Amino acid sequence: MGWEIVEEVGDRLARWPLNASDASYPKTVKHTPTTHGDASFEQPAKLENPMGLGRLGQTLTAREIFELVKKDLERVEREISLESVASVDAVTTISRYLQDGGGKRLRPILVLLASQLVGGVSDGTVRMAAVVEMIHAATLVHDDVIDSAKTRRGRPSSNAIWGNHTCVLAGDWLYMQAFQVALRERNFHVLDLLIALTQMMVEGELLQLERIGKIDVSEGDYMELVDRKTASLFSACARLGAIMGKTTDGADEATETRLGEFAWNLGIAFQLVDDMLDFTSHEKVLGKPVGSDLREGKVTLPLIYALEEATLEDRQLVGTVLKDGNYDNVPFQQILRVIEERHGFDRVRERAQSFTERARAIMSEFPDSPNQRAMFALTELVTDRDH
Amino acid sequence: MGWEIVEEVGDRLARWPLNASDASYPKTVKHTPTTHGDASFEQPAKLENPMGLGRLGQTLTAREIFELVKKDLERVEREISLESVASVDAVTTISRYLQDGGGKRLRPILVLLASQLVGGVSDGTVRMAAVVEMIHAATLVHDDVIDSAKTRRGRPSSNAIWGNHTCVLAGDWLYMQAFQVALRERNFHVLDLLIALTQMMVEGELLQLERIGKIDVSEGDYMELVDRKTASLFSACARLGAIMGKTTDGADEATETRLGEFAWNLGIAFQLVDDMLDFTSHEKVLGKPVGSDLREGKVTLPLIYALEEATLEDRQLVGTVLKDGNYDNVPFQQILRVIEERHGFDRVRERAQSFTERARAIMSEFPDSPNQRAMFALTELVTDRDH
Repeated sequence: MGWEIVEEVGDRLARWPLNASDASYPKTVKHTPTTHGDASFEQPAKLENPMGLGRLGQTLTAREIFELVKKDLERVEREISLESVASVDAVTTISRYLQDGGGKRLRPILVLLASQLVGGVSDGTVRMAAVVEMIHAATLVHDDVIDSAKTRRGRPSSNAIWGNHTCVLAGDWLYMQAFQVALRERNFHVLDLLIALTQMMVEGELLQLERIGKIDVSEGDYMELVDRKTASLFSACARLGAIMGKTTDGADEATETRLGEFAWNLGIAFQLVDDMLDFTSHEKVLGKPVGSDLREGKVTLPLIYALEEATLEDRQLVGTVLKDGNYDNVPFQQILRVIEERHGFDRVRERAQSFTERARAIMSEFPDSPNQRAMFALTELVTDRDH
Repeated sequence: MGWEIVEEVGDRLARWPLNASDASYPKTVKHTPTTHGDASFEQPAKLENPMGLGRLGQTLTAREIFELVKKDLERVEREISLESVASVDAVTTISRYLQDGGGKRLRPILVLLASQLVGGVSDGTVRMAAVVEMIHAATLVHDDVIDSAKTRRGRPSSNAIWGNHTCVLAGDWLYMQAFQVALRERNFHVLDLLIALTQMMVEGELLQLERIGKIDVSEGDYMELVDRKTASLFSACARLGAIMGKTTDGADEATETRLGEFAWNLGIAFQLVDDMLDFTSHEKVLGKPVGSDLREGKVTLPLIYALEEATLEDRQLVGTVLKDGNYDNVPFQQILRVIEERHGFDRVRERAQSFTERARAIMSEFPDSPNQRAMFALTELVTDRDH
């Protein structure tokens, strides 16, 4: 079973449009150390060093990235299958369903690539890659309960099939199982990282819940959520990969931190693009209806930017959708128009780009290697995609 | 704040009826090692050793037990208050609400007494007592979501106030916070125990959910749930107390195991009595409507015993309540009559008694001390109570 999934993941990765052209990146850039995790989320300075732009010509394709991790990703899938067998059938079934549903496996791939970058994939790397995917799955199950989601990745969501009650517990189980696997490493640093991460993600979901339906969301509010919900997990993936990498005793702390910062910036960019795709993609490609975020009462960055300059009338349109929880009175196309007229998408695209630039600046500190190039390629895959 | 709560806990404990009379305990008993956790749940052999019955005259009152742990319990309350401050207000508020709601604090008391029994309460003991109470609170929050409970301990349940969605996440947060506090001990044994325990409890809830509404529940099925939902946590409390006790390096493994077995048997008895009180107590004393379990589709031991000998007609009465989810067509009194006629309560009382006897037999292996006597007294408090 594992193999077909991995093949599928490869296919999915391969379908991501690649845009290796340098054209969209600024030529005059200055390297400044990122201060990942700071609350200000200030606009990054333009970087002077072309951030390995010279290497962009050699950037790997999605298929090539996948080839680099294929064998190990297969081991990760086996580990997840193995560790998702619960003494209660429902959990095993839900876990399988989630695993088979796929997803891009971006998080485990990050763990694997980070390990490879610092020396090689160890057994611990594979287990940690499985752990992060299980934690990710647990948060998805609880998120779907909270959002009363009906579909995810083009299939009925787990709560739609098994009911909210079972899914609350299945999510709990997945968290605990992930911690059990992690605990076997007998590494306190790893546990500190995972527990703090999970709590941060839960707090992010809670903050999001508090803001549901509110139109006045600032860019700072939004960025805090993106940090907590997505970027922290990306950062943890890279750090775990560094810690577990085949060196005498894992990567040194500075390397771990830098890889974490790389992935954190990648994660922010990833979520920004995700929230844009929620408006601009198509249901078939996205695996869920477009405009879901707004329908669920979540005001994301394209709208935040648009609302900064919108007329009172436009603002009322958005307010109506938030109040109604549907597009019955205000068609989705009207909301799209509001965002486009105020260049909401362009600004989000630029913002995402600035974070991938930061990520690339950090990655350019590492020596040239197929793994480094794969990391560069990841930053492109994340921003230039349609789902 | 902590202090008033502790005082309240003392009051609550003091209100528990104490029955120090030997009359209800068999005089001819034979000591057999318990095989706690075995799947068979066979009827325990009668014990030859009078299990410290000679000491029962000296058994402490609830107030005296409380005096033994009062100061430390106050520290536990402070620790819980301190560790329940989340970066998200909702969580802090819910945690406070749960803590103020009280409960008997039986689990932290068990941790404290176990530490005292092996040498003394350490700072780690206090932290672990807080951890088990937080894990217990987390399971309660998720349980209430799953049962769609409206009241708990005489007040609106947290999900009734804050909604299911916030409570799912608040439960997650409490789990993670408990693990964070536990992680600070830097003790893998403690973490193994806590994570395995939590997973076992979650699996218990899932099993229970699968059996909701089913009339054909065997005693074995039921006991498995009681083991997972209650006894395992009691056992973990005593073990953690032993591990954290002020000895050179915590209690030895044999002592830890025996204390765990003591508490496991105590936990089974506790849950059996709890499930009986759900039928025989009064709403005001219980803090929730009587007959809730059956209304929620849960067939517990008093009914399981009664159904073994019930007429087809009586069986249909039970079936109707399960189907309806209320007592509109079959009054609660009719169900009570069915159980009483088949001696359901008497049999459960005996069964609970057999488990407290096992617990006492184990406790009688320990040397006489105020703490040992407090443990004996706990076994009585657990069985002879009205709420």
